[in-house]
Amino acid sequence: MSLLVVGSVAFDSIETPDGSADRVLGGSASYFSYVASFFTKPRLVGVVGEDFPEQNRHLLEARGVDMTGLTTQPGKTFYWKGRYHQDMNTRDTLEVQLNVFGTFDPVLPESFRDSKHIFLANAAPSVQAKVLDQVTAPSLVVADTMDLWIEIAKPDLLALLPRLDGLSINDSEAKLLTGESNLVRAGHAVRRMGPKFVLLKKGEHGAILFSEEGTFVVPAFPSPDVLDPTGAGDSFAGGVMGYLATRPEVVPGHPEWGTQLRRAMAYGTVIASMTVEGFGLDRLTRTSRQEIDSRLEAYRHMLSL
Amino acid sequence: MSLLVVGSVAFDSIETPDGSADRVLGGSASYFSYVASFFTKPRLVGVVGEDFPEQNRHLLEARGVDMTGLTTQPGKTFYWKGRYHQDMNTRDTLEVQLNVFGTFDPVLPESFRDSKHIFLANAAPSVQAKVLDQVTAPSLVVADTMDLWIEIAKPDLLALLPRLDGLSINDSEAKLLTGESNLVRAGHAVRRMGPKFVLLKKGEHGAILFSEEGTFVVPAFPSPDVLDPTGAGDSFAGGVMGYLATRPEVVPGHPEWGTQLRRAMAYGTVIASMTVEGFGLDRLTRTSRQEIDSRLEAYRHMLSL
Repeated sequence: MSLLVVGSVAFDSIETPDGSADRVLGGSASYFSYVASFFTKPRLVGVVGEDFPEQNRHLLEARGVDMTGLTTQPGKTFYWKGRYHQDMNTRDTLEVQLNVFGTFDPVLPESFRDSKHIFLANAAPSVQAKVLDQVTAPSLVVADTMDLWIEIAKPDLLALLPRLDGLSINDSEAKLLTGESNLVRAGHAVRRMGPKFVLLKKGEHGAILFSEEGTFVVPAFPSPDVLDPTGAGDSFAGGVMGYLATRPEVVPGHPEWGTQLRRAMAYGTVIASMTVEGFGLDRLTRTSRQEIDSRLEAYRHMLSL
Repeated sequence: MSLLVVGSVAFDSIETPDGSADRVLGGSASYFSYVASFFTKPRLVGVVGEDFPEQNRHLLEARGVDMTGLTTQPGKTFYWKGRYHQDMNTRDTLEVQLNVFGTFDPVLPESFRDSKHIFLANAAPSVQAKVLDQVTAPSLVVADTMDLWIEIAKPDLLALLPRLDGLSINDSEAKLLTGESNLVRAGHAVRRMGPKFVLLKKGEHGAILFSEEGTFVVPAFPSPDVLDPTGAGDSFAGGVMGYLATRPEVVPGHPEWGTQLRRAMAYGTVIASMTVEGFGLDRLTRTSRQEIDSRLEAYRHMLSL
């Protein structure tokens, strides 16, 4: 079990119609590793500034996250401020200060290079490729991306895709990348660009998996208590990869792969539904593997036909 | 098995990014009854004008639809013309001619008054109530509605809701009716207004069922071949009610009710996914109960966790 995540660690200021949070711990690697810690002891690579408080580091360390790869650089930590609209599905970015993350050039600690499960959180595809170059023998590589890279670094992204087992991408990005307006066609088209499977995320509507084993629908867990959608996608990925890392021998080609991946997506779904029930990581700090498993059972029941 | 639908029979002219259809048979009662005919012999009540061609009537009659309740009045048939946007989720109404449907005052043939399963397709709630008054002993009543009635006839709608077993309503309408911005809260709030269960439709994302037995998610079948979304909602309802009518003794309160309703929604989902694969009723005229059952199996597989 050696799950590596490389991504952002940030301060988020969040406004929603129902409340707000100021400078709480955020960033893709924070959400991902916190969630994955319910299954394994993830390794985190990221960068923060001198303003990053010890208590944030402790929050992740206390969950068993290996923080050897979190470096502190002169300057300030990545800062994002956003405001969600009434429907919670759309948001405006009010402020972005990349700070030390703007020149993030991840160098893996020697002890991380043997990692088997790799999650390349959203970053420039060239940076994601450099991370991959530093891993000696990965067995399952999944990356996330965003519209910005499709627009300004498409050749780099296209070069990265065949090196991936899985790509996590949202609906509008998949359409942008492929030029397909039908979501199902877009998902298949992304897969033809290289990754063995595509996790197509649809926000509050869940996700669709496109894989060699077929197409699978993964509806969201319908929570009545959505407070802050920030981090839902990275929590989903953290649940998927965290669960997969518990059976490291089950990779594409293994007879149990299809079943295992679907079970992993169910975990990702229910944990993401918890993340959004609080601001930042708050709700996750108040859950347990037992509650997660119990929500997983409720989810299975909701889907029974 | 006596399933009654009261609703519109229309000519639709449809434009999509990939094609168009001119004056094809449409309307809620047409889609509903055609779909339901794969399970039972539905009874249709509606009105058309003198321009309604015999071949349209035959299309439904040949499927076993009882057309005793389709009256012809002086004037023209209801006409709708619409254009779908690139994403197929939104559309503009280009033209509406209510014609004879504008004064639709449904009178049930004597032979229809003993109907047990009733679907009140979208119409003014006062008209829906008058239909219900004419049925002697219904065992399951489901109605559809739309934003227009919430805006101009809310008191009538609120008076109708407690008389229903089920209400079919889409996401934005549920939010409008309840003032809730969270879809799950909105669904529960609609149910508190009277109906025993609420089918909350989310277009290409499927539906959520709110019922005494709990909340169930019903994702859409991911079709790569969406040509024309017209009629998807009424097809869904036709599949649900058609299947339910095959076991008329299973109504709310019956021990098998929850299971049966979920199975019915699965049928509604896969049939709706076929409807949208052609213009108007075209795709449905080329399917069979066997193909429907085979897609149902594919759907179950796609949802297996």
